[in-house]
This record gives sequence, C-alpha cells and structure tokens, in this order.
Amino acid sequence: MARWEPNTRERLVLAALDLFTDQGYDATTVSEIAERAGGLTKMTFFRYFADKREVLFAGQEIHSRILADAVAAAPDQATPLQAVAAALDALAATFADDRRDLGAKLRAVIAGNSELRERATFKRAGLTAAMTAALEKRGVPDMTASLAAELGVGAFYRAFDQWADPASEQTLTYLTRRALGELRAAAATLG
Amino acid sequence: MARWEPNTRERLVLAALDLFTDQGYDATTVSEIAERAGGLTKMTFFRYFADKREVLFAGQEIHSRILADAVAAAPDQATPLQAVAAALDALAATFADDRRDLGAKLRAVIAGNSELRERATFKRAGLTAAMTAALEKRGVPDMTASLAAELGVGAFYRAFDQWADPASEQTLTYLTRRALGELRAAAATLG
Repeated sequence: MARWEPNTRERLVLAALDLFTDQGYDATTVSEIAERAGGLTKMTFFRYFADKREVLFAGQEIHSRILADAVAAAPDQATPLQAVAAALDALAATFADDRRDLGAKLRAVIAGNSELRERATFKRAGLTAAMTAALEKRGVPDMTASLAAELGVGAFYRAFDQWADPASEQTLTYLTRRALGELRAAAATLG
Repeated sequence: MARWEPNTRERLVLAALDLFTDQGYDATTVSEIAERAGGLTKMTFFRYFADKREVLFAGQEIHSRILADAVAAAPDQATPLQAVAAALDALAATFADDRRDLGAKLRAVIAGNSELRERATFKRAGLTAAMTAALEKRGVPDMTASLAAELGVGAFYRAFDQWADPASEQTLTYLTRRALGELRAAAATLG
C-alpha cells in the first residue's frame, strides 16, 4: 500500500498541531508553522488559511459538505434519523485509525484555550446547520430536521472524543453508530 | 408603578445597544459607550465588562444560574423535560414585554457580525451545559440530560427570536412553552 503523502495544506495542519502541542497555541507563530511544514513561508500559509486559528478548523467546510451530500443521497424512504446515520457513516469513514493521534492532539489543543473552544463550538453549530438544511431539502419539517441534526452531531462529537483517546481500539464508525443508538434510546426517556 | 431605573451596568448595556444599532458594532468605542451611559469613563466600563463584546453577553452567567437553580428546585418526581420546562419558565419570566425592543436590537447587532455570532453560539452552549449539569445532579443519565437541555435551550432561542419580532404580541413565557411542546412533538417523529 502506498505511503500517505501529505499535500501542502495537510503539512501545514500537521506542523501546526505539533507546534501547538509542544510549545502551546499562543506561543506559536504562523512563520514557525510554515517553516516546520518544510521550509514554507508565511505567505504560503496565508494562501491556505486566513489565520493561525483557522488551521485547526480547516475541515469545517469539507465536513459540512460530506454531511449534506450524504443526507441528500439517502433513499427517499429513509427516516430523518436514518438519513443522519448515513451522513455520520460518510463523515466517520474519512477518519482513518492511523490518524487517531492527530485527533488526540487536536482535542488537547482546543481544550486548553478558550478562544479555540469558542471557535470549536461555532464549527459544531455549522455542521448542525448544514445537516439541518439538507434534511429540510428532503421535506423534513424544520424542527424535526434541527433535532435530528443536533442528535447526529452530538453523537459524532461524543464518539470522536472516545476515538481520540489513545487507549481506544475501536473505529470512529463503530463508536459513532453506538453513540447515535444510545442517544436515540435516551430521547425516549425525556418524559 | 415606579419607573424602572437602570443601574450603571444596565445603563452601559442600553447605551451600547443604542450605539451599535445606530453606528455599527465595529465603529463604536468603549469610551463612546461609557459617555453615552451618562458621562461615565472607560475605566468604569471596564469595572463591569472585560471588553466591548462582553457588554452584549452580560446575561450569560445570570441566565445559567437561573436555569440551573430552577432545574434543582423542580419536584423530585418531575421528568427531565418537566424540570427543563420549569427552568425555561423561570428564565422567560425575567424578560418583561416592555423590553422586547432591546431583544430586537440585540438580535440585529449579533446577526450583523460574525465574531458576535460566534460568541452567541458559545453563550448558547454555556446555557446548555449549565442545564445539563443541573439535570445530572438530579440523577438524570448524561445523554438524557444533554438531550433535554439541548431541546430546552433550542426552544428558548426559537421563542426569543419570535418574541423579539416587533410585530409579536405574545409573552416570552407563552412562546417558550409553545416551542418546547412543538419540539417534543417533533422528537417523536425522528424515526
């Protein structure tokens, strides 16, 4: 199997995660990230990312698109939660197990900085909004769509947290399906 | 009935909302807000708020506390959603109808600025986390707690949006109860 060769954008993300982990987010400059990514310049960095913070949230648009496309592609007869489950499967499949350590680093860097936690919450809301809009396009009423999307994104984040634990041995797909099942069961006990 | 006399903190919030509405958030300085609030200084402003942005989110801690206290005070036999409903009643009761126009201004200012939208999403997540923690303290399992809290906060925001519409004539309490009922009904159709 061919070795995975990161492209420039990915090299910048990897370099940033390493530096943020080693010396902290605040102490790291864009120039250092570019240099660590293979002798690149600040200017190259800014061709890919608006600022230092965005290097950590590069996936937002791609992830939103994956979720929305998979919801749109679900069979006509799928219930809202079945469409959401298909979307989560599509998203989880993009996280290979050999990148679990990147997930752990990302999680730790974000947890350690309030500005990053704030941005991460906004990303999560963006994923929910994308999935809500895709469900509405299928004719799902807006409240049902937003609930199903919240439930699905909630399951994904719960699962990601478990997956990013170095001690974990399960795939993100497995963990996400399990979390969605548990949340569905919990929804029946709200009273 | 006695006229409502705003205290210094409230005068600063009102002045900020007026200035942000009239001349835009970015164009307004902390000194201008302090001056408009009755000839106060920048230093006084910073005794109440960490920065210009926080003047719009002053309610976060108070609102979180109201929600958590009301969840804790709900009868032992209350279901998770009944405890949430009681908390929303307590929060909604703090928004008098004669302040509907402030809600409309707040909503418009936040909608017009991406940094503020991001901060508002974080506030919403904070309210959800506070209510989730309070439900867990009642012995509600964590997934059920977080779902009930999400549903409740979702209902409150939906209702606030309707309440802040100048054409609206209903109380926030009425609108929140209605939204919670609708979301509950929607939860039954997720599939």
